[in-house]
Amino acid sequence: MYEENRQITLEKVPSGALRETDFRMQSAPMPEPGDGEVLIKTLYMSLDAANRAWMQGPSYRDAVVGGDVMPTFALGQVVESKDASVPIGSVVEVEGLWSDYFLAKSGDLKIVPDVPPLSHRMSILGIAGKTAYFGLLNIGRPKAAETIVVSAAAGSVGSLVGQIGRLKGCKVIGIAGGAEKCSWLVEELGFDAAIDYKSGNLFKDLKVACPNGIDVYFDNVGGQTLETVLFQMNLYGRVVCCGAISQYDTENPVGPRNLPGLVVVKRLRMEGFIALDFPEYESKAEAELRAWAEEGKLKVVEDIVDGLENAPRALIGLLNGENRGKRMVRVATE
Amino acid sequence: MYEENRQITLEKVPSGALRETDFRMQSAPMPEPGDGEVLIKTLYMSLDAANRAWMQGPSYRDAVVGGDVMPTFALGQVVESKDASVPIGSVVEVEGLWSDYFLAKSGDLKIVPDVPPLSHRMSILGIAGKTAYFGLLNIGRPKAAETIVVSAAAGSVGSLVGQIGRLKGCKVIGIAGGAEKCSWLVEELGFDAAIDYKSGNLFKDLKVACPNGIDVYFDNVGGQTLETVLFQMNLYGRVVCCGAISQYDTENPVGPRNLPGLVVVKRLRMEGFIALDFPEYESKAEAELRAWAEEGKLKVVEDIVDGLENAPRALIGLLNGENRGKRMVRVATE
Repeated sequence: MYEENRQITLEKVPSGALRETDFRMQSAPMPEPGDGEVLIKTLYMSLDAANRAWMQGPSYRDAVVGGDVMPTFALGQVVESKDASVPIGSVVEVEGLWSDYFLAKSGDLKIVPDVPPLSHRMSILGIAGKTAYFGLLNIGRPKAAETIVVSAAAGSVGSLVGQIGRLKGCKVIGIAGGAEKCSWLVEELGFDAAIDYKSGNLFKDLKVACPNGIDVYFDNVGGQTLETVLFQMNLYGRVVCCGAISQYDTENPVGPRNLPGLVVVKRLRMEGFIALDFPEYESKAEAELRAWAEEGKLKVVEDIVDGLENAPRALIGLLNGENRGKRMVRVATE
Repeated sequence: MYEENRQITLEKVPSGALRETDFRMQSAPMPEPGDGEVLIKTLYMSLDAANRAWMQGPSYRDAVVGGDVMPTFALGQVVESKDASVPIGSVVEVEGLWSDYFLAKSGDLKIVPDVPPLSHRMSILGIAGKTAYFGLLNIGRPKAAETIVVSAAAGSVGSLVGQIGRLKGCKVIGIAGGAEKCSWLVEELGFDAAIDYKSGNLFKDLKVACPNGIDVYFDNVGGQTLETVLFQMNLYGRVVCCGAISQYDTENPVGPRNLPGLVVVKRLRMEGFIALDFPEYESKAEAELRAWAEEGKLKVVEDIVDGLENAPRALIGLLNGENRGKRMVRVATE
């Protein structure tokens, strides 16, 4: 017998900024696995800016619409199994739900080695780590001594992009909100410099921090920041299009007014990707990320919020930039 | 003794649409070549949308500012030489001026084989041909049976892009202004379909013409057309950023509002280039373009305006889309 199964529904897709009242938590019946299915107890749920983007329409996945239980990338433990290849007790990563328990088809999940800390599979060894790794190395392709700028630099992906850039011998400048985050990026994570975009001098501050221009811009935010950075890109620069967080939680998305003009003039390459695009490099990436973390070359920054009921507030906070490193919700322990 | 040397100056950079009164023609002294210089009689001047973009600020070249004699890509004949390696009578391609005669350093020019018709060095064997060739093949990299869309399809570059795309076994859809141009693209140049953007149904017309989506978009116009096409790009599509003619001759440039969002979601690659970026492939490109033209596989479309004094009107007309194929001004004959 299990405890209650709570789940959180998106009541309706907001037109402006997401609010806690857009969600509703309720009790639900305990789902029963059919043939080839397993019942999973949620351990961790990943919170990502992409969760908000999913509400804007179909993308690499179906849109999240009003009435849906919020989907999430999850880590969970199998508590009932109708597939002999997935034994009870297995720890798995899978698309789950904002709920205590959920069903999954055995073919849709991946059993992960239960090596502590399990939370690393949400951060350095999870989507965040692979997004940073593949985006920077496979799309941005920085050469040593080049200048990399990354926005949302204190976030789950940005904090790793900057550190990986440093490991590759590049100069790394972060863009983040607030003086405190900026000092933290430089002092704790080893960024060469960090710029507080809230101070309102992004263009000038970038000029000072990047006297040789910008070779790689890892863009997590889009909008006005992208427009400003583009002006300072070097010839043949690369813009890694990872996200557009400034555009997800607003009624009036805006595009950079200097596109595509500057792409032509500077012969830029702007390229989009998601972490799942490089299956052939997955195991190499994971091994390298793990080694860097173990050797202390990469600091793994996790921002763990306890309790399923706190997921809406934690996601809204993430969209407002209150997290440092990888934010996740711990729903239960093994 | 030579005839008069006339030159045309851009009086001031216009803030809105370019007008004939923004230019002034006047007599100028005949320039005298110094050591290592040659005096060139202008034969052909290339007219390009980029001429207008040059007035917007520095790019791959210095900005054109008020008071400058208009620069141009030119074909000319050497009439005086202070460099033994460039004999009088040589036909050269070089950055020249909107004038009957101009000076050039011998190191800045390239002697071209005087193979008739000389105008082909402005079209198929010139910047237009190489822009179409390199942009489509080196940046867009279409595979046979893919769908290519090209804007400003009746222009110097677009008309070649479409034909080269067909030669590579692709389905080619042109976007152009007016029903007449559109029929011409299909009937004379062999495009699979052409869409009149002025009819106001670009999105729907594209849907019909591209039932399998768009794999390569060769963008000559930017702005609203780019925004519309992006929505129909396929996963891993490529946007060849060649120009943004819709943005050059206006006070209020606009960026596509769906950037960078769609670049991420669809993992698009948008990449800028200019024809000069591929020196190692120049001779192969030229040989291939020449062969295609000689074999009748590529129709060379030239739009030749006679008389230096008609350059302003001809450039303004080009910005308004009145040309078909490569527009150039014939200033003199050999």
